[in-house]
Parts: sequence; structure tokens; C-alpha cells
Amino acid sequence: MKRIAVFTSGGDAPGMNACIRAVVRTAVYHKLEVFGIKRGYNGMIQGDIFPMTSFSVSNIVQRGGTVLKSARSMEFKTKEGRQKAYENLKRLEIDGLVAIGGDGTFTGASIFYDEYQLPTVGCPGTIDNDLYGTDYTIGFDTAVNTALDAIDKIRDTADSHDRIFFIEVMGRDSGYIAIESGIGGGAEMIMVPETLTTFNDVIETLRQGWDRSKTSSIIVVAEGDELGNATEIAEKVKKQLPHGDYRVSILGHTQRGGAPTAMDRILASRLGVGAVEGLLKGMSNVMAGVVNNQLVYTPFKETITKNKAIHPDLIRIVDILSV
Amino acid sequence: MKRIAVFTSGGDAPGMNACIRAVVRTAVYHKLEVFGIKRGYNGMIQGDIFPMTSFSVSNIVQRGGTVLKSARSMEFKTKEGRQKAYENLKRLEIDGLVAIGGDGTFTGASIFYDEYQLPTVGCPGTIDNDLYGTDYTIGFDTAVNTALDAIDKIRDTADSHDRIFFIEVMGRDSGYIAIESGIGGGAEMIMVPETLTTFNDVIETLRQGWDRSKTSSIIVVAEGDELGNATEIAEKVKKQLPHGDYRVSILGHTQRGGAPTAMDRILASRLGVGAVEGLLKGMSNVMAGVVNNQLVYTPFKETITKNKAIHPDLIRIVDILSV
Amino acid sequence: MKRIAVFTSGGDAPGMNACIRAVVRTAVYHKLEVFGIKRGYNGMIQGDIFPMTSFSVSNIVQRGGTVLKSARSMEFKTKEGRQKAYENLKRLEIDGLVAIGGDGTFTGASIFYDEYQLPTVGCPGTIDNDLYGTDYTIGFDTAVNTALDAIDKIRDTADSHDRIFFIEVMGRDSGYIAIESGIGGGAEMIMVPETLTTFNDVIETLRQGWDRSKTSSIIVVAEGDELGNATEIAEKVKKQLPHGDYRVSILGHTQRGGAPTAMDRILASRLGVGAVEGLLKGMSNVMAGVVNNQLVYTPFKETITKNKAIHPDLIRIVDILSV
Amino acid sequence: MKRIAVFTSGGDAPGMNACIRAVVRTAVYHKLEVFGIKRGYNGMIQGDIFPMTSFSVSNIVQRGGTVLKSARSMEFKTKEGRQKAYENLKRLEIDGLVAIGGDGTFTGASIFYDEYQLPTVGCPGTIDNDLYGTDYTIGFDTAVNTALDAIDKIRDTADSHDRIFFIEVMGRDSGYIAIESGIGGGAEMIMVPETLTTFNDVIETLRQGWDRSKTSSIIVVAEGDELGNATEIAEKVKKQLPHGDYRVSILGHTQRGGAPTAMDRILASRLGVGAVEGLLKGMSNVMAGVVNNQLVYTPFKETITKNKAIHPDLIRIVDILSV
Repeated sequence: MKRIAVFTSGGDAPGMNACIRAVVRTAVYHKLEVFGIKRGYNGMIQGDIFPMTSFSVSNIVQRGGTVLKSARSMEFKTKEGRQKAYENLKRLEIDGLVAIGGDGTFTGASIFYDEYQLPTVGCPGTIDNDLYGTDYTIGFDTAVNTALDAIDKIRDTADSHDRIFFIEVMGRDSGYIAIESGIGGGAEMIMVPETLTTFNDVIETLRQGWDRSKTSSIIVVAEGDELGNATEIAEKVKKQLPHGDYRVSILGHTQRGGAPTAMDRILASRLGVGAVEGLLKGMSNVMAGVVNNQLVYTPFKETITKNKAIHPDLIRIVDILSV
Repeated sequence: MKRIAVFTSGGDAPGMNACIRAVVRTAVYHKLEVFGIKRGYNGMIQGDIFPMTSFSVSNIVQRGGTVLKSARSMEFKTKEGRQKAYENLKRLEIDGLVAIGGDGTFTGASIFYDEYQLPTVGCPGTIDNDLYGTDYTIGFDTAVNTALDAIDKIRDTADSHDRIFFIEVMGRDSGYIAIESGIGGGAEMIMVPETLTTFNDVIETLRQGWDRSKTSSIIVVAEGDELGNATEIAEKVKKQLPHGDYRVSILGHTQRGGAPTAMDRILASRLGVGAVEGLLKGMSNVMAGVVNNQLVYTPFKETITKNKAIHPDLIRIVDILSV
Repeated sequence: MKRIAVFTSGGDAPGMNACIRAVVRTAVYHKLEVFGIKRGYNGMIQGDIFPMTSFSVSNIVQRGGTVLKSARSMEFKTKEGRQKAYENLKRLEIDGLVAIGGDGTFTGASIFYDEYQLPTVGCPGTIDNDLYGTDYTIGFDTAVNTALDAIDKIRDTADSHDRIFFIEVMGRDSGYIAIESGIGGGAEMIMVPETLTTFNDVIETLRQGWDRSKTSSIIVVAEGDELGNATEIAEKVKKQLPHGDYRVSILGHTQRGGAPTAMDRILASRLGVGAVEGLLKGMSNVMAGVVNNQLVYTPFKETITKNKAIHPDLIRIVDILSV
Repeated sequence: MKRIAVFTSGGDAPGMNACIRAVVRTAVYHKLEVFGIKRGYNGMIQGDIFPMTSFSVSNIVQRGGTVLKSARSMEFKTKEGRQKAYENLKRLEIDGLVAIGGDGTFTGASIFYDEYQLPTVGCPGTIDNDLYGTDYTIGFDTAVNTALDAIDKIRDTADSHDRIFFIEVMGRDSGYIAIESGIGGGAEMIMVPETLTTFNDVIETLRQGWDRSKTSSIIVVAEGDELGNATEIAEKVKKQLPHGDYRVSILGHTQRGGAPTAMDRILASRLGVGAVEGLLKGMSNVMAGVVNNQLVYTPFKETITKNKAIHPDLIRIVDILSV
């Protein structure tokens, strides 16, 4: 292997820059040439590919977003699109790829590998932490801390006004951000897609709180919860318990930005090193991950199809700590 | 004057605790007894009034929210409510009040003073900065910095994905938070109730940006803008320019919480000292404010009725800096 | 078991309050009575012990420091001191203890247990992360992020002025804070007690940087490094390479404070639950920890005497990423 | 005027980038060509001057440091150095300069103007806030908030351990950072060069605190205080009151970095616009400032020689609020 390329794809996540930096510098360290591809698969198709050096990635370890930009690509879902992408890479004699992204990215990478056998190793970059094969994904810890900071701020005003807040956090079909920011924020209740909360549970929790003279409450709702989004749930609750003072806050895209936390930068650095060294060891069609503090490689297909459950300890302590 | 009481009322604002602390300690410094009233006018009516000491306010200068809690009171709008409130204060021999809040608070205080002549000095505590008689209100600088931090985070992801974001900030009928967070955040456009932006201006700004290859944009929308809220504006824009990738983010109640900034703590401290010393000098029915770095007192009626315009320099530089 | 007590001892760490809250609420959940002891072993000796309820720990999950205060106790090192402490606990019929602290705390707890057999479970609370039996200690992640935030700020000015900064971080005999904040901060070199850096390595790293036109550098120094503290190292370097522009920054006690991160609050919550439920299961003289995401209990004696090495991957990637 | 250049000089300050951005975009807005000069007067002498566009300053409004880098120049103090600088500017047909910096910068600019009459307008960029002709300097508000955040963190641990902390903040001969961060942080005492604190005052404040059972204290010391630095003062205090538990923390260079606050970005933006428009109006040898919320221009000589006193209200409220 002499020449590799790196790109970011799908939803951006804080720490992607730290990962790009690690990929580039590890390549330089191992005497590989390294290229950057702009806007994920789109740039691959359009030939937006440029050489990178150690200096290209100076002073970016702390920045949110991705200097390579990201996008979701419709064209890469077509055979013609992938053909163009492959020709661009071939022309530049690129013989290895590092793909930083989530399940959509790895699905694409997996199909591409089946067709062209260009060695590819992935790094899990998504705030949702919904990938099997790694305990944490790049960006998750930052998103949780951003959500937590918002919950802390909202608790100030909830407490001052004796209000009940429904706070909606990101995570798509996964409740990880909700469960971690909710425990950290001392939420009275956390609604995640992984557990079946009934509407009566919500009513009961609020009633019990009032019985114990608890005047303000925080209920964290994962955007993918099966009972609906925060606005819908709040409206239903208001109908049944009309005397409460309810507010809804949707944390939104702030959860995607910001300087990454130490944990995300370190994880991103380890995985960037691991991806390049995996390529050098002949690995392909796998994602680098850290499980129980060890670097491991998991086939793309498993990362996408297998399920990563929330630790039952976490679900249990929500009940205990809201007494 | 021997015995005063302090309360917070209306929407809470970061720095209210720093102001309460200053009121209590200034009272102690001048050998006054000082009481706290819980939940604004509600606590006054219900007699939820308790003595405070220097220690009561230790270690609160940095906390968001208000340790005295806040509320909007319907009962105080009735003659009977105010009568009960007065009797509670009289029974405790309270001969001076410090009211921390916004225009609703001062409207109530003004009526109460007309009826019972209990000397009252106000401190402007609201994130909206919509009170005449002070350059800034307590909580405004913190709210602006919270909004700015969110805009910075959103710009990371807007830039990574070449998206246009409509970000809605608080401020009720005032555009202060929008204009300051928008300039600070480098927004391409800022929509405030104080200026008449037409819908065509929005379209034109986006078109011009695209012409100059500007791929991502931030448009800050004050919640009280005359063209509608951020969601409504985004939908209308999408109809006219359907190829853009738009997102809406409503910053919401995070803007009300959090540790106050230095500026808010200092302003709150000066105004708390000024309110108590104003009472001692025989002032009443006025709000303490800081104008051009000098402590001034303005009659409640003026603070409510007079308008405080946004400095034209600020409105002008938005246009210049978005070139 | 009917009545337990909790205390914090040794150096304080962010997240101790989240742990106290979890201990108290888990006790309430399991129908135990729970007491708080002030200032660690000192309060135990002086009888500064008071009942706690669910409400005692409301709204503290986000606060740095410890509401129970902490201290190092000389008197508890004497047989007489421990005797007094035991009598106070006995009089209150306390039949279980939760000790939150570090190796000094657990050494004391271990001796106390040998003498009086009062069941005690520990929670690892120290920013240093130097305890065997848990992957992370409560407070470590917050301290790392605080150090990282300072390094980010210093890099701004280092880069603007082409300067070399020696930044000293806490950790006593452990290099954990240095290694994690250094990797996260993109440091050119990290000096920790666990590895033998020679003085020539420092000179060589700086020379190589200059050869590659690297004009600013960050060198993170663990306070326990065998080559000396940051000031001493900087002075020696300046003698050998006098033309560089060097600055020293000692991050100091800011690393001990601040709102805990999500990771610290969650860890503290799990361990607080685990400590109380450990007592209920009959455990004693052990520390609750989380290893590979599982709750485990390790005898106090092992936690103090066994060594927890820094993962070799982390040490290795420093070299790779500074190319 | 057709072509201007901008540079940053002296100690860097957060917000300098926002100012550079405003200068560049205001120049573009008024159809001027604009150049950047690297490393202050050094780059002027070495001809390190390059054209800038609107895009050059995209996405820098939020960054600490200065993208133009800064330095103190020995060579510019010589007639030969200034001659070279002038020739470089003349060759590029630059007919106006914007200098962002502090008193050293403006002293140089003033001499340069006397010799070559090249129109120059300054923007006050220094964290020290020690320039006459503007209420605040760019970077001051950020430095104060950084110091305040550190004081908040230290108070957590001071309070947990009943300790007295001496915290040294920056500001050279000025006590502005100390007074504002000290009031904001609720310091028990603030030592600034502008007031003569005797050593007995320190002893007395600590004694009175103990008498009122105040167990922890924060004393903020300006680096330029006439009684010595924080370490020296702490040592003297320890000799006289040996039973106290003292710690010293020197906040150092973190105060120079970090994302600028809203206030600093807005001030920097106004002043950047004001500097360019001042040049266009024919002004020269003056500094743009904001006094009482109005843009004003003050001759360089006055900005350097005249004194800006700390508002007496601020000094007074320290005493009141520490009761």
C-alpha cells in the first residue's frame, strides 16, 4: 500500500477532525501518501480529491464539524456513481480508503468493496452511538455533554418557576444520548426507544413527584421514542394533568457541533491510527472500534446489522435515583 | 428604614442570585434587617417571607435561576390580593422593598405603591433587555452568550453540510438578543422586530450568498419578528428556493439558565447595592439602572412606557460584515 | 442493615456530589436510613453526623466540590481517634459505611475495618485515576476536560506568538491526566512518570519541530514527572536552546473544580448505587469500581497496592501524531 | 484611499480575529483593496504582506488568537527598521493602515506616522483594558470571564476543604481584570495596583472572616499589585497566621486564549468598521474606541499617556459585598 484517501460521510460529529488528523499523520508516519476527499461519496464521484500533509491537519484537533465536509450521496447509490468514484480513485492510484461515518457510510463502503475490492477500513463517526463493534462512537460523548449542559441550564429555570420540562434530545432510533444525558442531568424520567414506557408511567411519575412535593421535573425524551416526540407527549400530558406548568425544549443541532471532549478526541485519535494500521496489516471491509479499551476490527456488515443494547444498569439506576 | 424585603418576579434571569446577594449584604452592611419573599407577589400574598443573613447568600453569586423562586401572579392583579400582600408586609414591619424583575413586575410595584406608599426600588432582571432606564438588564449578557455558543456550534455543522440554518432566539418584542448574538455569531442576516425586513430581502440575501459561492448561512430570527417565527419563515423560503438545504433551530429555555457572565454578576451587584442605598436615600417607585456606566434611578412608569432603541451602529454593521 | 452513613475524604473531585446523591437515594429506595458525615474522618471523630433525605441531595448532581466537605485527618491515624469515631457511629446505630475518596481514604477504612468490623464499601473519588480496581475514578474525566480546555486556550496564544509552552497538569504520581489531556490537546510531547523521557528527548523533539518549520509547541508535563516540574524543565531547555520563546503554565487547582462531565456523573451514580447495594449484599472492605463497563468490587488492599498502567496504545500514539 | 493593510501587534487578545474580519469586510464593502501583514511590525519590515478577501476571514469570528499572528518587534524601534517597513508598504501602494494592539503598538504607529505620514487608525486590542479613549478593549471581557470561570472552579475546592486561595490574574499595571473577576467571583478581597492595600488589611480581612465563621476565602491579586505577587503575599500571610490552609493559583496564559465573548466580538466588529471608515473620512494617528456606547476617535498620544481609572463604585462594592 502506497497511497490512501480519507473522507467523512453522513451526519457530521465532533471529533471527526481529530480522526482525520490521526489518519493523515499515521499515514505520514508510515511513509504513505495521503489524500483527502471532499463531501464524502459526492467528492469521490466528482473527483474532489487533494493531497494532504501533516500541516494540513495542524490546529484542527479541537474543532467541531469536519474540514473535509460531509454529505449524504444519492448518486453513490447507483452503479454509475460508484463506477465514476472508482475511476477517480484508480486514476490517482489510491489503494486504500478510510471512511469516517455511520451505518449509511459503511453500507455504501461495503457495496463498493464487493464491486471493486478496494481495501477500506471505517471509523465510527456519529453522535448516535448506534454502531455495533465499538463501545462508543466518535462524537457521542460531546453530544451527551452538550445535551447535559443544556439540561443543567433548563433545570435552573425549571426550578425557579416550578415547571415540568420535556427535553427532546437527538439519537435517531437510539436512546443512548437520552439515557446518558438524562442520568447526568438528574432527570426524573427518561423515555427511550429501547424500553416501553407507557403513557400511564409518565402520568404516574409526575403524580408521585407532586405527592412528594417535588415541584419541578425534567423528562428527557429521545427523538425516536415510540410514544412520540416531546411536543406530542407534552400535549397529551397536559390534557390529563391540566394544572401543571409544562414547557418543551428541543435541543436540536447544537448537539452536532462544538469542540470535542477529551474522550472523543482520544477515541478519534486511536481509531484513526487503528484504521491506517489496519489497512497496512491487510484488513478490509471492517470498522475499527474500541471495545473494553482494546482496539478491535468488526466486519462492516456486522456493525450495521447487529444491535448494541444499552447497559441494563443504566436503565435501572434512573428509577432508583429519581426517588 | 429598619427592615426591607427582596423578591424576584416574572421570567427568571441569570444574575438574579447575584442581585439578591448584593441586596442582602448591602442591607447587612447598613445595619438593616432583611427578608426574602418566595415566588414573587405570590409569596407576598401567602406570607412566604423569611429572614435572611449574609450566610443565606453565600456561594450563590455564580448560580443561574433564583433561590427566591419566581412566578407571575394573577392574584396580585386584584385589589384583594394586594391588600393581603400589604398586610403581610405590615405585620412584619417591613418598610422597604426591592423588586427584581421586568415590566410586569414594575407595573405591579407601581400600582402597589400608589395604593400603599410602601417605598420600593426595582432592579431590572430580564434577559430581554427591553427596559428603558438602563443600558443593560441583568441576564441579558448571559443569554446572548448562551445563544452565541449555540450559534457557534450550529455553524460547525452548517458549514460541514453546506446548509442554511434559521435560528430562533428569545427576546419577546425586543430584538436585542438577536442582534447581539447574530453579530457575534457572524450571521448572514438578522431579523428583528425593530426593523422591517421584507420577505424579498431574505430571498435576496440567500441568492447573493450563493452567487458568491457562500454555501452555508446562518439567519438569526428574533422570536417577535413581524415576518413570523423561524419555522414559518423557513417554510416560506423553501417554497421559493426549493433547492437549498434548510434547517430550523429554536434555542428555547437554555437561554434563561446557566452561570451568569462577569458582566451580569457585576451589573447585578451594582444594582443590588444601588437599590438598597436608593431606599436609604428616600427614593421610591423607581428602578435602579446603569446608563453610561453611572448609576441612575428612573421612575417605574418611564421604564415601562418609554422605548429603548437598538443602537443604529449595530443594525448597520450587520449589512457591512455579511459581504 | 438498617442505617448507613456516607462521607467524602481526601482531595475533593468533581462528581463526589453525584455520588453522595446516588448513595442517599439508593438507601432511601431500599428503605435504609442514611446519614451524612462532614469533613471525612474528622467529622466522624467529632460526631458531625446528620440524617439525610432524598431532598438533601436535590439539585447537587451538577455541582463541583462536595456538600459533605472533605479533609485529611491526622487524628484518625491514631488509635484514640478511630476509637472515638467508632463510638460516635455506634451510638447512632450506624451499621454500614460508604467512603468516597482515594488511597488515603481506603487505607484508613481498611485499618478501621480490621479493628471494628463495621462493613464499609468505597467509591473511588479522585481526579488522579490512580486506583486499581476501576477503569476510571470519579473526577478524572472532568479534570482532563478542564486541562484540555486550558490547553486549547493556550494553543491560541502559543500559535499567535510562535511560542513553546510547558504546561503542568495535576496527577501526583500518575500520568493519566497528562496523557489524556496531552493527546486531546494535540501536544507535541507528553512527559509522564510512567515513561522515562530523557532530557535529550525534549531537546530533540523541539529541534525536529523547528526543522519542519513548526513554530509553536505544547509540552504537557505531569506534576510527578521524574525530570522535574515544568518550571525546572523549561529553565534547563532554555539554557540549551536559548533562542526559543518559552512560557510555563501551571494549571493548578482549577482542575479540581467545576461541574462534572456526563461521564463523571454517570460513573459516580453507578458507583453510589453499587456501594449501597454491595453493603446490602454483605460486602465489606472493598471498593466498587467499573471495569470494562461492569460493576466489580475489589478489596481495599488491592486497590491501594496494585498498579494500574496507562494503556500502551496511548503512549504510542503520542509519537505518531506529533509527526 | 484605495488600498489598506491590517496587522495585529503586541500581546494577542481574544477578539482580534473578529476585528480583522470587520476590517477586511468593511474594506471590501467600500471597494477598497485590503492586505494582511503577518507578525505585526516584523512582517511589515520583512515584507510578509498578502492580499485578503471576504473569504479569507470566513469562519474566524469565533476563534481566539490572531490569524495574522503577533509579535513584539525590536527592529521597528530603529530608524532603519521603520524605513524598510515604509518601503514595503509604498511598493505595494498601501495608503492606509489599521493597527490592532495596545500601547506599544500605538507608540510605534505614532512615531511611524510622524516620519512618513501614512494614515493609520488603531483598534484597542489587549486583555488589560489599560487604554484611554475606550471604555473597554478587545479581549478584556473574555479574559475576565476566563478568570471568573477559574475562580468559580477554585471556589468549589476551596469551600470543600475550608481553604484560603490567593488567585493571581493578569493585567500588567492595571487592576481591571482583578476587580471585575473578583467582584464576579464573590472574592473576599481584591488587591489591585490602583489602591493601596496594606498588609494589615489582608490580615484583618482574614481574621474578620474567621470571626464570622467564614472558613474559606478567595483573595484575587492583580499581577501588578504593589504588595507583590500572589506567592509572595501568601508566604507573608502564612508567617503571621500560620494555622490557615493557604493555596496559590496563578491563572496565567489561559486568560489570553479561548473563543471571544459576545461583547468582545461586537466591540471588535464595531471598532473594525470604525477604523476603516475613519481612514476613509481622513482620520489618522488616532485610535477608534467606544465610550458610552458611541464610536469616538482619540489621538494615539492621548491613549498612551492618559490614565483610565477604575470606577470608584466598583472598588466600593467589594467592601460591601464581602460582609
